Amino acid sequence: MNLLFLGDVVGRAGRDAVIAALPGLRARLKLDFVVVNAENSAAGFGLTSKIANEIFEAGADCVTLGDHAFDQKEMLAHIDTEPRILRPLNYANSAPGGGARLFNAPRGKRVLVAVALGRIFMAKPFGDPFSAIEAALKKHPLGAGADAVIVEIHAEATSEKTAVGHYFDGKASLIVGTHTHVPTADAMILPKGAAYQTDAGMCGDYDGVIGMDKAEPLRRFVTGMSGGRFVPGEGEGGLSGVFVETGPDGRARRVSPLRLGGRLPELVPEVY
Amino acid sequence: MNLLFLGDVVGRAGRDAVIAALPGLRARLKLDFVVVNAENSAAGFGLTSKIANEIFEAGADCVTLGDHAFDQKEMLAHIDTEPRILRPLNYANSAPGGGARLFNAPRGKRVLVAVALGRIFMAKPFGDPFSAIEAALKKHPLGAGADAVIVEIHAEATSEKTAVGHYFDGKASLIVGTHTHVPTADAMILPKGAAYQTDAGMCGDYDGVIGMDKAEPLRRFVTGMSGGRFVPGEGEGGLSGVFVETGPDGRARRVSPLRLGGRLPELVPEVY
Amino acid sequence: MNLLFLGDVVGRAGRDAVIAALPGLRARLKLDFVVVNAENSAAGFGLTSKIANEIFEAGADCVTLGDHAFDQKEMLAHIDTEPRILRPLNYANSAPGGGARLFNAPRGKRVLVAVALGRIFMAKPFGDPFSAIEAALKKHPLGAGADAVIVEIHAEATSEKTAVGHYFDGKASLIVGTHTHVPTADAMILPKGAAYQTDAGMCGDYDGVIGMDKAEPLRRFVTGMSGGRFVPGEGEGGLSGVFVETGPDGRARRVSPLRLGGRLPELVPEVY
Amino acid sequence: MNLLFLGDVVGRAGRDAVIAALPGLRARLKLDFVVVNAENSAAGFGLTSKIANEIFEAGADCVTLGDHAFDQKEMLAHIDTEPRILRPLNYANSAPGGGARLFNAPRGKRVLVAVALGRIFMAKPFGDPFSAIEAALKKHPLGAGADAVIVEIHAEATSEKTAVGHYFDGKASLIVGTHTHVPTADAMILPKGAAYQTDAGMCGDYDGVIGMDKAEPLRRFVTGMSGGRFVPGEGEGGLSGVFVETGPDGRARRVSPLRLGGRLPELVPEVY
Ligand SMILES: [Fe+2]
Ligand SMILES: [Fe+2]
Ligand SMILES: [Fe+2]
Ligand SMILES: [Fe+2]
Ligand SMILES: [Fe+2]
Ligand SMILES: [Fe+2]
Ligand SMILES: [Fe+2]
Ligand SMILES: [Fe+2]
Repeated sequence: MNLLFLGDVVGRAGRDAVIAALPGLRARLKLDFVVVNAENSAAGFGLTSKIANEIFEAGADCVTLGDHAFDQKEMLAHIDTEPRILRPLNYANSAPGGGARLFNAPRGKRVLVAVALGRIFMAKPFGDPFSAIEAALKKHPLGAGADAVIVEIHAEATSEKTAVGHYFDGKASLIVGTHTHVPTADAMILPKGAAYQTDAGMCGDYDGVIGMDKAEPLRRFVTGMSGGRFVPGEGEGGLSGVFVETGPDGRARRVSPLRLGGRLPELVPEVY
Repeated sequence: MNLLFLGDVVGRAGRDAVIAALPGLRARLKLDFVVVNAENSAAGFGLTSKIANEIFEAGADCVTLGDHAFDQKEMLAHIDTEPRILRPLNYANSAPGGGARLFNAPRGKRVLVAVALGRIFMAKPFGDPFSAIEAALKKHPLGAGADAVIVEIHAEATSEKTAVGHYFDGKASLIVGTHTHVPTADAMILPKGAAYQTDAGMCGDYDGVIGMDKAEPLRRFVTGMSGGRFVPGEGEGGLSGVFVETGPDGRARRVSPLRLGGRLPELVPEVY
Repeated sequence: MNLLFLGDVVGRAGRDAVIAALPGLRARLKLDFVVVNAENSAAGFGLTSKIANEIFEAGADCVTLGDHAFDQKEMLAHIDTEPRILRPLNYANSAPGGGARLFNAPRGKRVLVAVALGRIFMAKPFGDPFSAIEAALKKHPLGAGADAVIVEIHAEATSEKTAVGHYFDGKASLIVGTHTHVPTADAMILPKGAAYQTDAGMCGDYDGVIGMDKAEPLRRFVTGMSGGRFVPGEGEGGLSGVFVETGPDGRARRVSPLRLGGRLPELVPEVY
Repeated sequence: MNLLFLGDVVGRAGRDAVIAALPGLRARLKLDFVVVNAENSAAGFGLTSKIANEIFEAGADCVTLGDHAFDQKEMLAHIDTEPRILRPLNYANSAPGGGARLFNAPRGKRVLVAVALGRIFMAKPFGDPFSAIEAALKKHPLGAGADAVIVEIHAEATSEKTAVGHYFDGKASLIVGTHTHVPTADAMILPKGAAYQTDAGMCGDYDGVIGMDKAEPLRRFVTGMSGGRFVPGEGEGGLSGVFVETGPDGRARRVSPLRLGGRLPELVPEVY
């Protein structure tokens, strides 16, 4: 199967880039399954039902959320009506929605997606991601219920994301981090066959500060004083994510970063 | 000028990789100036005088340190005898050593190196990096005292590192982050001519958890219990860093990640 | 001199308690100088000019602020017109207003007030409080320019507040912590004559969660989900603070907690 | 029943104070049950079996631990042999020992003790204390299995500790915080009958920095540089804790702080 994971969509720039590019990428990369983290797509904070629908229409099969899952209050109700949207498994015991789901893919394939929050350097306390992911993966093991397994770890610390990678290697097709909004250059296939990248990067304006217009972040950092709200950057959005090709056993036989548009050098894998 | 910056050297694997590769890289990349962050080179924690000398002998012109600057207590005395070692500008008012220095480079060129710690998600409080770097750069401005300026921001948060990049664009040849030990895939030249990469990555064993053997980090993450000390991974070390070519005005006209050895895909820029 | 320090005023409950009680306390305790921290007096977040004036009219000589100093944006302009309001010395280099001031008190006495933020467990990074306070105290030393010196350390960690106490013992009449909104039971006179209490407590509704109505904090802690904004508790406000009597040398010869109204047991020192 | 809870024992000063005073206090206060948090009793870090035995011999019925539970590695094995020692419920899934236990008390009474860690401002991530305590209390409800219930919340943030108090009011005889090492002045009986105090304070040298000799903490705060290890203060230790008298329904009908020895003003309740 050919899988694509796109990192945190930030604001209009990110949405526009995803909506414009994803239909073409589905064809060009012969994609079987597409996951898009959209936790920052609504003016930088959270996700609305309208935006979620636009991203699904553009070709996403699953939309994930992170610590900003419920910044838009309508999502509290909407998520229970739209099973293709996942919030982190360990967001809160009482959170609506779910954090893992087995999706149907073309040709009778089944894809398990699970997303969890890290706990290091996060603003709020969350439950243990390792046991949460482990429980989700046990229900639909790779090769025994799931033809592909995508694990997203939405976390700040590189150490925690790397540990998730090693721990679930052998049980996932792709283990990918999100949340820092900067893609890492460490795409690799781990020894037991999981594709891994510490952070997928974001889909948004790379001429800002992690997707936000840079004026306000710079003011706060340099002067220590707030001068208003954070707003997404309005420059041309770039896509950033990870492409994985799995073999019959669900393990990765190829992994490649994908970068398209905006300020980062373009990198779109060739698929034959 | 041709500049190379190598990220945090971790343990013997990192040291061996640097010592083995740097002499060849100096020639192959026609390097005029090399900076190596070595804050984790002594068993993962700090730097000794012996290791510093080995890194200088291998071809480094400047060795920098981060939050682990004085994990090896001998460095408290040694740093005042070795002006080529820099600790972060804002480490502490009373810290020995200095955080910025104007170095002599070939052909009468002068290179200013300044290193500062970020403040977001760091275990200890530090002074403001923006004003600290600004003061250092005012003493030897790019193009008026310094032929090249290298700013290292040793920080966890991508937002803070990106803000440093934007803020000092136009005043530096290279602005590069360190500390997360994972290279980012966002090498770019900012609008006013500074080469930028959010994190240089590390020099060490990429089959661990940010350079450390993965057993103990995994135990702590998964069980919540410590089972011993962190020790550096002993797999083959990979080099990770950033190569920059500056023009006569000291601005970057080319930037490229450099990755060599270990588990990351090799990427060594061609220099003619 | 007889000094009174009242901790963080929270919302209407706290304001009403201060305004009702302070005129009587001024007479009963023969107060020469009164400092009130009012950083949470405006609906729990910040201070308005109107509320500041009410607190001054009730008998405060100085109103201090903490990390919530500028939650009400009008304070950004107002503080420069009202020198009796102090924001923390180390809030930000570019913050309006000042963090220390020498006030005139009855009978030709002069009182220096200085307030600084701690750095441990605070949501934002701040500059070093120790050097900031030290510089302020050097300008008007106790016994040589200032007849009384009040140091407020607005901080979370008991360790940091205790360290401030020990460090400035001998140089202040009173060193008192704020910010946790819970009074500590450790009022004491330190060896070199400074009265000390780790936290003054708050003026507000003690039947809440640190002055806020308990419904929303409990919801967030128990469910992990936000259900709305924090609002101040509306129960009867209690006053909490510290009373100090200084001798001719400005050192404390008596220290006593003051608690009045609300749910805490009443404790008002007798003054003859 | 008459219950006494003593806060974190720090080093020899704290141990000596507990061992000297507890036998007399048991008689003087007609104590039925005594809990002592001893997480800092072994040179400031953790607990050894030898020290635990000394504290039991002095009259403790239960010894609790906090985030420093296993700083002394021997406790990893010892705790499973000594059911009277409790580590926090939410320390880690895989931690040895338990976090709640029903103890036998005189006259056929049964006392449930449960201890949990807070999550705000703690150095490591822990599981949710609210659900952990709730589960423990459901097994032996107050008045239906337990004649008295003591809940200890070992936490930094006053907000979290206060929320625990409100949440378990009605289900506990005493809810008391530990970890900050400074007693709070807010002993009260909550509306549904639970005695509450935000922090019990510590048993140790109050002329230090939260029980540690003040030289090293001051050095680190003022200079930003470490100069050695933290060692407990060696001044006379003071006891600090909370005394509670429960009625036949297990609810508190009296609560009083207890302070004895050292630098804090003495406060020992009269018991008839
Ligand atoms: Fe995000
Ligand atoms: Fe996020
Ligand atoms: Fe490092
Ligand atoms: Fe570092
Ligand atoms: Fe406050
Ligand atoms: Fe505050
Ligand atoms: Fe403790
Ligand atoms: Fe503790």
